Parts: sequence; C-alpha cells; structure tokens
Amino acid sequence: MYGQIRIEHNLSCKAKPRFEEDLGFGRHFTDHMFMMDFEEGKGWHDPRIIPYGPISHDPSAMVFHYGQAVFEGLKAFRTEKDEIVLFRPDQNAQRLNRSSDRLQMPQMDEEFVVDAIRTLVRLDADWVPRKKGSSLYIRPFVIATEAGLGVRASSRYSFVIIMSPVGAYYEEGLQPINILVESHYARAVQGGTGSAKTAGNYAATLKAQALAKEHNCAQVLWLDAIEKTYIEEAGSMNVFFKINGEVVTPNLSGSILDGITRKSIIHLMKEWGIPVTERKISIDDIVQAYENGTLEEAFGTGTAAVVSPIGSLLWNGTPMVINQGNIGDLVRRLYDTITGIQYGGIEDSYGWTISC
Amino acid sequence: MYGQIRIEHNLSCKAKPRFEEDLGFGRHFTDHMFMMDFEEGKGWHDPRIIPYGPISHDPSAMVFHYGQAVFEGLKAFRTEKDEIVLFRPDQNAQRLNRSSDRLQMPQMDEEFVVDAIRTLVRLDADWVPRKKGSSLYIRPFVIATEAGLGVRASSRYSFVIIMSPVGAYYEEGLQPINILVESHYARAVQGGTGSAKTAGNYAATLKAQALAKEHNCAQVLWLDAIEKTYIEEAGSMNVFFKINGEVVTPNLSGSILDGITRKSIIHLMKEWGIPVTERKISIDDIVQAYENGTLEEAFGTGTAAVVSPIGSLLWNGTPMVINQGNIGDLVRRLYDTITGIQYGGIEDSYGWTISC
Repeated sequence: MYGQIRIEHNLSCKAKPRFEEDLGFGRHFTDHMFMMDFEEGKGWHDPRIIPYGPISHDPSAMVFHYGQAVFEGLKAFRTEKDEIVLFRPDQNAQRLNRSSDRLQMPQMDEEFVVDAIRTLVRLDADWVPRKKGSSLYIRPFVIATEAGLGVRASSRYSFVIIMSPVGAYYEEGLQPINILVESHYARAVQGGTGSAKTAGNYAATLKAQALAKEHNCAQVLWLDAIEKTYIEEAGSMNVFFKINGEVVTPNLSGSILDGITRKSIIHLMKEWGIPVTERKISIDDIVQAYENGTLEEAFGTGTAAVVSPIGSLLWNGTPMVINQGNIGDLVRRLYDTITGIQYGGIEDSYGWTISC
Repeated sequence: MYGQIRIEHNLSCKAKPRFEEDLGFGRHFTDHMFMMDFEEGKGWHDPRIIPYGPISHDPSAMVFHYGQAVFEGLKAFRTEKDEIVLFRPDQNAQRLNRSSDRLQMPQMDEEFVVDAIRTLVRLDADWVPRKKGSSLYIRPFVIATEAGLGVRASSRYSFVIIMSPVGAYYEEGLQPINILVESHYARAVQGGTGSAKTAGNYAATLKAQALAKEHNCAQVLWLDAIEKTYIEEAGSMNVFFKINGEVVTPNLSGSILDGITRKSIIHLMKEWGIPVTERKISIDDIVQAYENGTLEEAFGTGTAAVVSPIGSLLWNGTPMVINQGNIGDLVRRLYDTITGIQYGGIEDSYGWTISC
C-alpha cells in the first residue's frame, strides 16, 4: 500500500528536553517526521520518514487560502513494563478519513496510517517519556498543497505526522476546571463541519476562548448554534454530566466531535452498570439539576487530559459550583481506569492498546 | 508605520504567460511578492518585497492545525489611458482587519496595507494585462506562523501579498449561470465566522460545490443554517433579485460576506433611483415571484466576475429559469458601469479608483 516507507535518518539529532520538567504541550518535537504526498491521478505516494524540519510551499498553496486541513491527536505511552503502546490508533485513522471526506479531501488506507505512526514512534522511541502521566503526543495532519487560487478542492495534498513529548496534563494530579457557558458565539451547526477535526473549526473558537480566559475559565462550553439551548461540547473536550445517578452526554448530532476518549468511557460505564445516555441536554436541564441538588458530577473528556473534572460552570454571569468544587468518584475511577490501561497497570481486556 | 518597505528585486524574472490567451484564475503569479511579519511584543515589522517563491514553515505552524488564516481579493486594472488603478482597496484593508478581529488575529494599519499593494503593483506593472476584461488579481493574506500545538491564538503571523494576471471572467462577455439552491449543507451561522473572509469558510463549502457541479450548476446558493429558509449568498458571490421593479438582496446578518462589489452596486442603483432593499429574503419569496411572473432578474456580485446573471435556480430538483435565461437590462447596465469605471471608459465620480 503506497509503497515501502523510506527512512532518512536524522544525523544531527537535537538535545532532548528534560522529561522530568514541565514539557508543556506541543512545544518540543522529535527528531523525525513522516510525510507522504497525494496527487490526482497518482494517489498517495512516496511515504517517507525524514528529519524533522520546515516544510516549504508555494504562497498560493490552497491550505493558506481555502483551509483544507484536517488533523488527529493521539498518544504513545511507555508502560510500567517499558513497552510503548498506542491507544486506539485505528479510531484516529477512521476519524481522519471522515474529516477528510467532509472537506472533499482524499481517503487513506487506515491500516497504513496506523503502521506509519508505529514506524515513526519506534524510530523516535527515546522520545517517549518515562514519567507517569507523560507521553508522546502524535499529530497526524493532511493539508492541501496545490498552488492556485481557484476555489475548489485541491488536487495535491501532504500527509504529515509530527510528534511531541508532553507532560502530564495536570502536574499535581486531577484538577477541577472552570468552564464558561458561551451564548454569543457559535462553533458549529448542523450541515457544517462541526464533527470534522478540521483547522477552521478551531480558528472559529479562539475569540470565545480568549473571553473565557478573561473570566478565569479554562474553556468554553458551546451551546447549539440554532436554539442556543442544547449543550454541544467544550473547547477541546466532550462533556458528561452525572445527574441523580445517571450519566448523560450530548448525542452525536453532526455538529460535535466523535471523541475517542468519549466512546471509551461510555463503554467502560456501560460495563460497570452505570446508566449512561447519549441525548440532547439543554442548559436548562443542567441549571435545574444544579438547583435541585441532583447535579452530582460534570467532566470533560479528550486525548490531552483524558478526563477533566468541571469544578464550576459560569452561566449568565453566575457560577454553578459542582460537587463543591471537588473531584467526583466517577471521574476519578474513569481517570484511573483509562490511564491504568494506557500505562499498563490495568490489564487491557478491550484490545485498546497496540504495541509499537 | 512598520518601517520602510525594503525591496529585493527578482534578478531571474520568469517568462510571462501570453496575456491574449486564456489566463485562467490564479494560475500564474508575478515576479515579486510582499511579506511582513508579526510577533507579539514587537508588532508588525520587516515589510519587504522579495522575489515570488516558496515560503517555509515549521510543520507545527499553527495555520496548518488551527486555521488562523484570512485573506482578501481585489484587482488592478489597466485603463484605456494606460494608467493602472485599483478598485476601492481601502475597503479590502478594512475588511481584512474585521476578518482578523473575528479570528483573534492582529490588526494592521489600513493605509499601510493599501500602500503595500500599490508599491507591489508598481514594481510588477508589466504584469497588468492590457486586454479589456483582463486584470491583475491581488491576494493579500495573513497566516499564523507560530510553531506549537497549544490551541490558542498564535503569537506570530505573516502578511503576504501575491498577484496573478487573470483573464476576463467571461471570455465571451456576460454569461448566465445555473445555481443550485443548497438545503443540506450549511456554510455559516450567526455567531460563527460567516462574515469573515477566512480559509475555513471556503473549506466548508467544497463538498456542496462539488455536488453543484454534478448538477451542472456553477455555484451553490446558501440558505441560512437555522431555518433553511432565508437566502444568504452564493459560493463566491453576494446575490440580488429584481422582483416587480424592486431590487432585493440579503441584509448583512452576520453570516454573509460584506461584499465590496455588493456595496458598490447598491450605491449605483440608489443613485439611479432604482428601489433597492437589504432584507431577509426567503426561498419561498423567490419561488412565489417566479410563479407569479414578477421575478425579473437575478444576479451575483463579486470581485472575480463583477456581476453574474443567474440563468436558473435549481431548487428541490426543479429549475426556475429566470428572464428566459437571458441577460437582464439591469445586470448589463451594472456590469457596463462598474467595468467602465474600472477601465476608465466612464468617469469615476465616486472616488472608487486609486492610481498605483
């Protein structure tokens, strides 16, 4: 498929950052990157691993003008037995294809994508941190590279994979965060690109994200763009609420991201016998549960933090403090289970982890 | 402002395409381009004109991942007196700033932007075609260049201007086009980025655009994303309808582009005493006018084609043929007037044209 991956070793590897210290997120990059090109009539070709370095494009390259760009995010973990594993990379490959389809971009063989990731991780294995909570963040992305200003789908693309060692999301362990419920700006709408992991969706959120920061909130909680009533997702997470013993999360309506952590924890909760429902949830439902004391926990899920307890929701200028701002039992159990599977402390009976 | 524009001449200029032949749109580029960089704390700096050529970025440059990219489009015309003029470039500079604001990107001095365009056009003046209908298309754009994967506004940007000689949009003169009224996909929604000229908006439209092509339609006509009822804009044009002597066009609701050709022709029609109203227009209004015989003309407006007569609208599988598929008197008058002003055949009493 697409030919053998050619490897050009980096002969001047950089000094690694100190993995014990704060690595941040996506600030340091490994010695190598994967690249492959697409051309209409020729398909995907020339898969190669080359030294990490700048990529060069004509200034009329379509990605700069018409935004055909999709990406994925996943992590490689170093287990307690010093193996390196990926968490459900097949799901990322599938979603990459779904995103590409929405943006009129070419499909890729999903097994090949996983194989490319594994090959790259093996080559830069020294970059996978040993410290619990740390990991190697992997960013596959596809961009339109045809030179030309006609508004249409590009005939050329590059698929690139870069990798960055990242620290634990919460250096001190799980930490509840404040979230601003956003009612003015919109992230996505039915018929739009909300369920695709595409660059433009993120650009659209930055202004609201900056407003959230001004209110001392870590992220925005998006409401649906039509009725400004139904909860969609947070800035970089899907969201869950535990109300009177039942866990609810917005259903995949077409305007939210089909999160891989989301589907993994739904699977776990169902197995644990915790009632979990994917449905429309209005902000009024949440306010009501808060007021009558049945809103027990709220949390976000995503690759970066796994799960994030929500300490408070700021809505119409009033903060709703959840679980007295403490970390709930459910979120703790989910966090421990997912990270246990990722770092090998808990046996993976789901086939979610794949060795590199 | 930002320092003097440094000029590095291209010493190996390319052979120009034959301007008499079909130049297409955005396929050939001139010998030089303008660039200027932004860095937080330092502001915009190092304005320079350099030989046209590839630009190089770290693969983690934010534009590839989070889509902070805005652009403009305008044209330089060679007049009958062999002068080179721009059409309302101040309006493009203003809109660039509005787009940047929505995307949490830095503002630029608007007079400087116009000056940079004029300086670049003067240097590549030989690239402005002589043939009536041809012009030099100018594409200013701003992209996020910071290397890093944190989801937030970039701290670094590049402002680039590239230019392309383009042929007449309609080689044979005005030609009515077919338009598909789109009811499944959405382009934009209130609170989103629809009124900004940003890359992601265009990526979101490509799938619908491809479907339009399959129906033998040149473009899509977007309905509002909420009620799927109100007309917004076409793929790359604002739209106007002449119904029973009155001209109507969708008002600037926040989800459509504030077109410069749009505002220019509204100005002209008001001056001519033609009743013109900016308001909500439902697709049902149009169907009703079509059925009772009062839908006299329909047309799109934009920089590329100036005005485009709409020969038919395909709605729910049924084509509505407008003005028997002929070019209307109003669209002809608007086209002749705007292009007359641009090419100098009609005196510009509005101050719309600016010499280079």
